[in-house]
Amino acid sequence: MSIQVYGFWRSIASFRVRVALKLKGLPFEEIPIDILSGEQFKPGYEAVNAERVVPTFIHDGHSVFQSLAIIEYLEEIQPEPRLIPQDPKERAYARSLALMTIADAHPLVVPRVRNHLAKAFGADAKVIEDWGKHWTIEGLATYERLFARRAPAPFALGAEPGLADICVAGQVVTAQYLKLELNAFPVVARLADRCFEMPAFATSHPFEQPGFKAAAAH
Amino acid sequence: MSIQVYGFWRSIASFRVRVALKLKGLPFEEIPIDILSGEQFKPGYEAVNAERVVPTFIHDGHSVFQSLAIIEYLEEIQPEPRLIPQDPKERAYARSLALMTIADAHPLVVPRVRNHLAKAFGADAKVIEDWGKHWTIEGLATYERLFARRAPAPFALGAEPGLADICVAGQVVTAQYLKLELNAFPVVARLADRCFEMPAFATSHPFEQPGFKAAAAH
Repeated sequence: MSIQVYGFWRSIASFRVRVALKLKGLPFEEIPIDILSGEQFKPGYEAVNAERVVPTFIHDGHSVFQSLAIIEYLEEIQPEPRLIPQDPKERAYARSLALMTIADAHPLVVPRVRNHLAKAFGADAKVIEDWGKHWTIEGLATYERLFARRAPAPFALGAEPGLADICVAGQVVTAQYLKLELNAFPVVARLADRCFEMPAFATSHPFEQPGFKAAAAH
Repeated sequence: MSIQVYGFWRSIASFRVRVALKLKGLPFEEIPIDILSGEQFKPGYEAVNAERVVPTFIHDGHSVFQSLAIIEYLEEIQPEPRLIPQDPKERAYARSLALMTIADAHPLVVPRVRNHLAKAFGADAKVIEDWGKHWTIEGLATYERLFARRAPAPFALGAEPGLADICVAGQVVTAQYLKLELNAFPVVARLADRCFEMPAFATSHPFEQPGFKAAAAH
C-alpha cells in the first residue's frame, strides 16, 4: 500500500499519526505543510483538506482527516500490533484518554487559536504563552488524576503502548514547547519517558523532524 | 442494562450522547450537573469524572468519559441500528466529520473557555460572544465546504442518521445559542432540519430538556 501524510513538524496531531504508523511498521511519505506561515490556507492544500488543517492521511489515493479518525482507520486496515484493545470497556478507556487531549486540552493551543487571541484581544506573546500554559497544565493534571485511579502498567492500558499513550505523549510534547516543568505530574512524566525510549516515539518527536532541524538552522 | 448519564441541558456533548441513546432505543436516566454554576468542580462529581466535565456515561456501574468514546462504546455493545457504517473508509469519514466539531470547533466555545477569556483578558460579554461566533462559523463553513464535495443523501453518510449527523446537529445548536443565521450554510442547515424532524433529535435538543425549562421559568 502507498501512504502519504501531509503534516507539519510542530503539529501534535501529525506527531500522533507518525507514531501510530511507526508502531504498526507502515512506511509512509510525509509531505510538509507549514502551518505557521499559513500554507494550509492556500488553494492547493484546501483541495486536499477542506478543513485546512494537518494532518491529511492518504491511503492508495483515499483521504482521511483528523488524527483520531486516521488512527482508528489504521487499526481497521492493519490490526496488528493493536493500538486499541479488543475489550469494549478497554477500547472506551483508550478513546476517553485520547479525547481528553484531542478534544479538550490541545485544541486550545493550536496556531489558529493563538493567532486569533492576538487579533481579537490584542494579546501579546507573553499573554498567549500563559494561555497555552494554563490549558496544557489542565490537560496534564487531568491525566495525573486519572492515573492516580488506574496506574499505567507500564503503559496506560497495559503492557504495550497504544492510542492513549500516543495522545498523552503528544500532550507532554506541548508541555515541552512551553518549557513547563512536569514535577507536579510524575506519573504522566514517567509514561512519556517510557514512550520516548521507543524508536517509534523518539523518531516521531517534532524536534527530530527535518522541518524543525531546517528551522533551527536559520 | 442500566444506563445513567451525568449531563447538562446546555452541553452539546451531552446532547450527542442523548441522541445516540435514543436512536439506539436505549432507555437511560439523566442526572443533571450544572456546569454553569460550577457543580462539576465539586468533590462529589470529581469522584465520578476526574476531568470534571460532562457527560459521564454509566453502564451497569462502569463509567465511560468523552462523548465520542461513549458513542463508540454504545455502537460496540448495541450495534443496531448502526450509527457508524461498517466499511472502513466510511467509518473514517463519519469519524472525521464528528471530530471537526468535537476536536476543532466546539472545544473553543465551552463555558470553561469563556470564563477563562474573561479572567485572562478581561474580555466582556460582547467580545466573548464574538469569539464564540468566530469559531462556530469556522466549524459551519468547514462542514459546508465538505458537503460541497459529497452531498448528504439525505444524511451525511447516506439513508440513515448516525454519528456524523449527531455532531453536525450539535454544531448547529451552538449556532442557535449564538443566534447565528445559517443562510451561508444551506446544506448544513438542511441536514440539521432533517435531523430535528426525528424524535430522537428533537427530544434531545437542549431547549427541550427539563433544566432549560426550569431556567427559562425563572
